[in-house]
Amino acid sequence: MLSAAIIGGAGYAGAELTRLLLGHPEFELVAVTSARDEGRPVRDLYPALQACGLVYSAHDAEEVAQDAEVVFLAVPHTAAMAMVPTLLDAGRVVIDASADFRLRDAGVYSSWYQAEHTAPALLAEAVYGLPELWRSAIPGARLVACPGCYPTATLLAAAPAVRAGLVRSGRVIVDAISGVSGAGRSLSEATHYVSATESVAAYKVGSHRHTPEIEQGLGDLGLTDASVVFTPHLAPLDRGLLSTVYLEVEQGMSLDDVHAIYRAAYASEPFVTVCVAGGQPATGHVRGSNRAHIGLAIDQRSGMLVVTCAIDNLVKGTAGQAVQCANLALGLDETAGLTAPVPVV
Amino acid sequence: MLSAAIIGGAGYAGAELTRLLLGHPEFELVAVTSARDEGRPVRDLYPALQACGLVYSAHDAEEVAQDAEVVFLAVPHTAAMAMVPTLLDAGRVVIDASADFRLRDAGVYSSWYQAEHTAPALLAEAVYGLPELWRSAIPGARLVACPGCYPTATLLAAAPAVRAGLVRSGRVIVDAISGVSGAGRSLSEATHYVSATESVAAYKVGSHRHTPEIEQGLGDLGLTDASVVFTPHLAPLDRGLLSTVYLEVEQGMSLDDVHAIYRAAYASEPFVTVCVAGGQPATGHVRGSNRAHIGLAIDQRSGMLVVTCAIDNLVKGTAGQAVQCANLALGLDETAGLTAPVPVV
Amino acid sequence: MLSAAIIGGAGYAGAELTRLLLGHPEFELVAVTSARDEGRPVRDLYPALQACGLVYSAHDAEEVAQDAEVVFLAVPHTAAMAMVPTLLDAGRVVIDASADFRLRDAGVYSSWYQAEHTAPALLAEAVYGLPELWRSAIPGARLVACPGCYPTATLLAAAPAVRAGLVRSGRVIVDAISGVSGAGRSLSEATHYVSATESVAAYKVGSHRHTPEIEQGLGDLGLTDASVVFTPHLAPLDRGLLSTVYLEVEQGMSLDDVHAIYRAAYASEPFVTVCVAGGQPATGHVRGSNRAHIGLAIDQRSGMLVVTCAIDNLVKGTAGQAVQCANLALGLDETAGLTAPVPVV
Amino acid sequence: MLSAAIIGGAGYAGAELTRLLLGHPEFELVAVTSARDEGRPVRDLYPALQACGLVYSAHDAEEVAQDAEVVFLAVPHTAAMAMVPTLLDAGRVVIDASADFRLRDAGVYSSWYQAEHTAPALLAEAVYGLPELWRSAIPGARLVACPGCYPTATLLAAAPAVRAGLVRSGRVIVDAISGVSGAGRSLSEATHYVSATESVAAYKVGSHRHTPEIEQGLGDLGLTDASVVFTPHLAPLDRGLLSTVYLEVEQGMSLDDVHAIYRAAYASEPFVTVCVAGGQPATGHVRGSNRAHIGLAIDQRSGMLVVTCAIDNLVKGTAGQAVQCANLALGLDETAGLTAPVPVV
Repeated sequence: MLSAAIIGGAGYAGAELTRLLLGHPEFELVAVTSARDEGRPVRDLYPALQACGLVYSAHDAEEVAQDAEVVFLAVPHTAAMAMVPTLLDAGRVVIDASADFRLRDAGVYSSWYQAEHTAPALLAEAVYGLPELWRSAIPGARLVACPGCYPTATLLAAAPAVRAGLVRSGRVIVDAISGVSGAGRSLSEATHYVSATESVAAYKVGSHRHTPEIEQGLGDLGLTDASVVFTPHLAPLDRGLLSTVYLEVEQGMSLDDVHAIYRAAYASEPFVTVCVAGGQPATGHVRGSNRAHIGLAIDQRSGMLVVTCAIDNLVKGTAGQAVQCANLALGLDETAGLTAPVPVV
Repeated sequence: MLSAAIIGGAGYAGAELTRLLLGHPEFELVAVTSARDEGRPVRDLYPALQACGLVYSAHDAEEVAQDAEVVFLAVPHTAAMAMVPTLLDAGRVVIDASADFRLRDAGVYSSWYQAEHTAPALLAEAVYGLPELWRSAIPGARLVACPGCYPTATLLAAAPAVRAGLVRSGRVIVDAISGVSGAGRSLSEATHYVSATESVAAYKVGSHRHTPEIEQGLGDLGLTDASVVFTPHLAPLDRGLLSTVYLEVEQGMSLDDVHAIYRAAYASEPFVTVCVAGGQPATGHVRGSNRAHIGLAIDQRSGMLVVTCAIDNLVKGTAGQAVQCANLALGLDETAGLTAPVPVV
Repeated sequence: MLSAAIIGGAGYAGAELTRLLLGHPEFELVAVTSARDEGRPVRDLYPALQACGLVYSAHDAEEVAQDAEVVFLAVPHTAAMAMVPTLLDAGRVVIDASADFRLRDAGVYSSWYQAEHTAPALLAEAVYGLPELWRSAIPGARLVACPGCYPTATLLAAAPAVRAGLVRSGRVIVDAISGVSGAGRSLSEATHYVSATESVAAYKVGSHRHTPEIEQGLGDLGLTDASVVFTPHLAPLDRGLLSTVYLEVEQGMSLDDVHAIYRAAYASEPFVTVCVAGGQPATGHVRGSNRAHIGLAIDQRSGMLVVTCAIDNLVKGTAGQAVQCANLALGLDETAGLTAPVPVV
Repeated sequence: MLSAAIIGGAGYAGAELTRLLLGHPEFELVAVTSARDEGRPVRDLYPALQACGLVYSAHDAEEVAQDAEVVFLAVPHTAAMAMVPTLLDAGRVVIDASADFRLRDAGVYSSWYQAEHTAPALLAEAVYGLPELWRSAIPGARLVACPGCYPTATLLAAAPAVRAGLVRSGRVIVDAISGVSGAGRSLSEATHYVSATESVAAYKVGSHRHTPEIEQGLGDLGLTDASVVFTPHLAPLDRGLLSTVYLEVEQGMSLDDVHAIYRAAYASEPFVTVCVAGGQPATGHVRGSNRAHIGLAIDQRSGMLVVTCAIDNLVKGTAGQAVQCANLALGLDETAGLTAPVPVV
């Protein structure tokens, strides 16, 4: 067993990491920290985690580094980059669920996150942790930057078409829907039940911070001059994320051909399913799991490929992917701790 | 008081029409028909309609034509066109909420609805009932074809930009989200609570029947070669519809300029609100009302105008718009029966 | 038109009062106050209230008293009793939606609300505003104490049986379910969407402050030694309240007899419906309306009458009842402003 | 590995059994039958079950008996008792999730289920599978009758108080709330999303078939003259069940004493948690798990103990308990296949 800790374990992503690590066959969870809930038993804050005997401890990277061989960061951006050097210096493997090491260009980071990067020297070392697309970089990595939830679904949706050279324009429209847990455990009018239930709305249209991350990823996949128009929406879901991606392809491209390309691309992926022709993924089908389900349609009249990808924003979009990356980084079975079937209805 | 009847009053649109007509100062609801629920009191089927003393009667257009001066049709497509000639021959004003008279071209109708049009001679006479965009055609009309719910929100979103000549490409992407009542009262696995709650999914991607109606409307607004890529989604809402419309405009267009154009276009509209700059409409804000709320954003990097429009699919998307059209057709105050404030949270 | 004001207009009850007063034929809403949202336009905070041109003003009872003939209080308990003397001294009619004047005994008040009553001299004058049960006291009243939401549903459920002498024990079990708006607009973990959706739980079991109010009301109805065991539950509803009331009656009592008693008791009530035998009220059926729907069942084996009553906690449970009481107090038609049909699905 | 089959695997309980058996370390799922969905791959009907390669086969008890050592029945009542003799004759262990073998008295069965019992000789042999209360009867059993969802939560709530002799009256009020999956996968108006969302209602008041089962269980626990008044409610939950149980105890009983009794009773139970004093269980806390969480309160004025118990109706209320019973019947670790942590928010 490898010792593991979570820094920032009391938020939704941290709680989901706690769940997954408690059920993991190779990791032993030894510490969970929280600035706000220090001193509270985990099972008081999250009664579903009755199996957890831990108490939230203080947010002390040095202390955590003494106890844990692998450290998961589920703190907000800027807080993560403040701790990573300490953890790496102590020889720990760091799996960072924040945004701090996702963008390779510190200038892009500062312009979108309104903060100077305090550890730019580590940007080149950080590995972008989307295993299905860039798996080979992860084994042996010291610092894995786990992708954002929207980029995860969007890049999984776009990748086979882009890599196959089907996409003839860098302009990509991404229209996505997320559940309320994506906004975190913080209280706000928008996340009050009475505001959120039975209502949908777009937010941060054209200005969401996941935009440059999606563009960077599309470029890495080979799309020239990627320019993303990204519209996220909030819907009455506790968890779940659906990204609908519009890609311009050659007119006359057949849906069968595209299906074949996608099925081939993901044939050996344990967590990705390409729906049968005509099928569409629903977020309810991946709820609680590390899976991504992908649907394909072509608008023949306009030559537009419309790809949908459903994930659970807290699992494949955050905590599950972090565990998957940790497994790969440390040489474990990639699916360890991620295969328990989840409730189906 | 003018006598009014609803043919097909037991579905959701019919029930909403019943509600609005019961509260209308100028219409007296004299008959509500239902094939399936004939003989049941309205208030048994819809306990919220305690104020209604009517019993669903048989679906008999001739009989209805004897009693009512204005007839609202809330039956499925093909059923409507089978009844309209009878009603018009009897001298009645017909407000049709079905799809049968929305498309002016019978060939387009038959190719999208898989049915021959049985009253093509009336297509030229039918008036498309979207008052905010084509109000002048409605007064005095004998046959009003009320728009579909998606076209209503989408055309209201696009119209000011198109009419102002801002849109430089006929390719328009429409990504929309609807509540479950849009699928009607019929039972299906997709509308079972356990399937629908806490899940979102796209459906009929690139093949939804509202596509040609949106294209026809965009052409009427002046967009050349309108070609719509339309992706509807189902979300866990009982009612509500949000359409997110992507329009290519000149790069460098300022959001202030676009705002000014939209505000001017809708300045005197009683049911349309353009959100303040940076604001976004939520379907919860128009729940139960005949209102449309519109939000604007520009993605400066790509020159894409992203317009969102929220309506209640059963009110502005169906029953409320039908009443608004009836008011206009018959020379009443356009807002009669549509101004009662609705629950705000 | 009578001038009206709302003190505490930015919470959910205040917003619902705003809606109802905007649509009222006899009241003109001249001021809405809010400590927290002073200076914000009402329609910014509640976009559904586009028809409202008011801006939240300061919480100043003296100033409000200068402008408005009738003042609705939608502030928390203790805040209300601090303002009422000022308003009455200015000659205003006060409709108080808080708990401050519901209990006639200042000692009971202080033991349940942990606060000394600061205006005990007014307790004798205050009228308990549940028109269906104690209508005659309201006309001409200067100070109406509107009942709590749970007492409203519970007393309407119990009254006909108690008054008819059917109930043979003072021990009454009340098991009730409320929507999240009952907890108000304040932010808390319990009202976060992610906590509240898809979960139910009891709260304040045996200690909810509505308990003595229910007991007082049952005593007023004639029940000797009323002792209420009250268990409220929170369910994933934005609005709605169902009270299930267990009353011990003589064994052998027939459901038909009880039905006849209830139908007779409420025969002329504009806002109460007794469901047909075997029918049960649903909160969805009274959503947005000032109605109460009542269902009856008898457990023959035990001689237990089980009465259910569904209301909308924000309308009949708060704002609608306040308007109904204001209508009565001021000699208007009791139903004025409360009859607009509400969305039915 | 023991071979296992599910007869009636396409309903919600069957799907949940499929999930649990796929993740079980000791059972190999070899067949899943469905009358309605024969021939469809499991993963087409339930996309969340991508890990399942099975196809629904015909409902043939004889054929199933050839392949599987243990057979789970998730068919409706009457269908189960028609198959059980065949399965037992073939030497199989039968875990029956239907109601057919829960009531020991065939007369009580026929009066509540309106059907003659066709295998009354097996009633004496059938073991009631509620391990926390009657564990010792299960090991070695050939036929386990798994309790209903409401009886499970209610008996777990009542048992420690009854066994400790605290309850002084046989009259027990049970007021419970269930999610929509409890009504099964069948389509109905009540389970249509638009009907079910944002609404609660009681149903089958005083006539629900779980009533005699609860009474039988209370009697088995030692309560004399148990007479249950049972009011189930439907709430907008996909899964989850909360039972609120009212037990008359001696006045003056302290909450601390009762807490001590409950904690002692369940101290070594792997799936039961007694909430800390003042805490209340929420169905969201046990969602997807085989756990039962119990809350305690005493209404001192009336001497009423109010016990709440939250379970997931499809897990501890059905499929999870079936697996727990199968583990015990076959001599496996009781918790095998039931310990994977489930999503916490």
